[in-house]
Amino acid sequence: MGKTALSVGVIGATGLVGQEMVEILDERRFPVASLHPFASEHSAGATLSFQNKDVSVKALRIGEKDVFAGLDLVLGATDSKLARAWVPLAVSAGCLVIDNSSAFRMEADVPLVIPEVNGHLLSSRHHLIANPNCSTAQLVMVLKPLHDAAILRRVSVTTFQSVSGTGKAAVDELMYQTQAILSFKEAKREVYQQQIAFNCIVDWPCDPITGDSEEETKIIAETRKILDIAQLPVFATTVRVPVLRSHAESVHIETEKRLSANEARAILAAAPGITVYDDPKRKIYPTPLDVVGQDNVYVGRVREDHAGGIYLWVVADNLRKGAALNAVQIAEYLLKGSNGRLS
Amino acid sequence: MGKTALSVGVIGATGLVGQEMVEILDERRFPVASLHPFASEHSAGATLSFQNKDVSVKALRIGEKDVFAGLDLVLGATDSKLARAWVPLAVSAGCLVIDNSSAFRMEADVPLVIPEVNGHLLSSRHHLIANPNCSTAQLVMVLKPLHDAAILRRVSVTTFQSVSGTGKAAVDELMYQTQAILSFKEAKREVYQQQIAFNCIVDWPCDPITGDSEEETKIIAETRKILDIAQLPVFATTVRVPVLRSHAESVHIETEKRLSANEARAILAAAPGITVYDDPKRKIYPTPLDVVGQDNVYVGRVREDHAGGIYLWVVADNLRKGAALNAVQIAEYLLKGSNGRLS
Repeated sequence: MGKTALSVGVIGATGLVGQEMVEILDERRFPVASLHPFASEHSAGATLSFQNKDVSVKALRIGEKDVFAGLDLVLGATDSKLARAWVPLAVSAGCLVIDNSSAFRMEADVPLVIPEVNGHLLSSRHHLIANPNCSTAQLVMVLKPLHDAAILRRVSVTTFQSVSGTGKAAVDELMYQTQAILSFKEAKREVYQQQIAFNCIVDWPCDPITGDSEEETKIIAETRKILDIAQLPVFATTVRVPVLRSHAESVHIETEKRLSANEARAILAAAPGITVYDDPKRKIYPTPLDVVGQDNVYVGRVREDHAGGIYLWVVADNLRKGAALNAVQIAEYLLKGSNGRLS
Repeated sequence: MGKTALSVGVIGATGLVGQEMVEILDERRFPVASLHPFASEHSAGATLSFQNKDVSVKALRIGEKDVFAGLDLVLGATDSKLARAWVPLAVSAGCLVIDNSSAFRMEADVPLVIPEVNGHLLSSRHHLIANPNCSTAQLVMVLKPLHDAAILRRVSVTTFQSVSGTGKAAVDELMYQTQAILSFKEAKREVYQQQIAFNCIVDWPCDPITGDSEEETKIIAETRKILDIAQLPVFATTVRVPVLRSHAESVHIETEKRLSANEARAILAAAPGITVYDDPKRKIYPTPLDVVGQDNVYVGRVREDHAGGIYLWVVADNLRKGAALNAVQIAEYLLKGSNGRLS
């Protein structure tokens, strides 16, 4: 390719993550020569705004070939089923593909990358790079500097995940159900098995034998892969809460070298992409609402337990660092490492 | 006293917990000869329904004495500040007091009791018995049978607490803020420091040095006291979520004797006051909404981790087992142990 401005495709461009990718490419002045948004047939005729111009969304039809020909970079923002259908075509067409779905994340030859954590894995020999799960991304951003400083011995996480992680229909469902309840009407369920308004639920599918949710399995496997610690004890429980955007995580860690809360805060404050927002004296800590639209991962409630471990409250915009932003940052990292040329 | 029907006072009778106490006394046909609801002056003139009759609420005025004279049993449903003012007067008046506030829970000579767990501590020599914190009660209900079977080595809990645990004004605040947001108006804050609608927050005060919330401190100290394991490693993070009623808890335990998920389920199913509601094949697990108005503590998502520990998802009505029900059960336990007479 070797061009300094790229032809960029976005698969699933009308979804929450796809739209956020387009917005972030624009806002960060990513060198886009031409933007090619793709979506499913029911988005046919839609347009997106990019660099103050309307760009038509192209509908992807099964069986179609050559649709990605000539593109330099393709960002995937679909679910894993659609990713399995379209990503290989984009790779075959010679595009560099950064895919946000879970379809390829655990494949041995696919790097699973958070630039601040393991950007060194990125090289021009890869044609497919996987973007981590949203809950994993914000967790690992915080774990990495603490591991470098003190060596992680165990990690326990319980998530408070917003509905935007499930997609647009889930955001609509929370709003509709909430409105219905305030109007004493029935709160109909379509996206989630249980009512999400004024409730806390678990996403299905869960493994029928172990009971683990897909999200729990992903957090454990992806955290180990990104940190490159195959046997790291990671314990995860994932919960969906009636919040529109941004995920929060209650994290408890134990390290080989004992850290004080102040040491942990200092380590995190010095790490890239992290904002320590933590002062109990002044009632300061991050909530999901506070970080909507923010790029950084926010950490507060850094506390010592009675046994040498550390508690952390980790909050980030799931559509930004948890998805779209990280994908664009991977592309930026590759461009930077190759003096502005993807090849 | 030695009577078979008792004169029963309820302090804070117009609050959420106080109202629930009155309802539970009625519903369980507790032997009430006369009911005496007390509240603050701004509830003066209010009436409560009990046994299909209206009962006048008596306003408590500071400096007033003899207000509890002649009562056999007094249930306290106020915050700890008011409890410190009124509970000692009721004890001095010769009443048996069961207090739901945190004021006396950690005093060495005050039993902190969940009847199913440590009811054996109850005896006629106590004039003041403390009811545990709501989050602690549902947690310990589940921990006790597992400890008896396999000896707890460590307990980690993250809570998802409903606003009714804070009181009526907090329930109103969640509803008002939600309505305001759906109407594109400002979501004003009075009860909580941060917006609770569509958000996850922490209750203040938190210790300005350690950052621990009062709720976290209570869970650790009360769990150890009720289980009578002074040094049990308990790790707690407490979070307030936009749910009206019932608390959920993400719990992770390690035990001396390794338990399978099936063994843990069987132990819990055999324990009093617990309902195991757990079948991932049929998408069955408890949510806060499911258990509103239920007496039992519900457990689902019983899962084995990869290292020999067990995950549990523990959900209960915070106003029932977490507060009012447990207080009435303490009184019932004492009556039963004394053949229906408190003396």
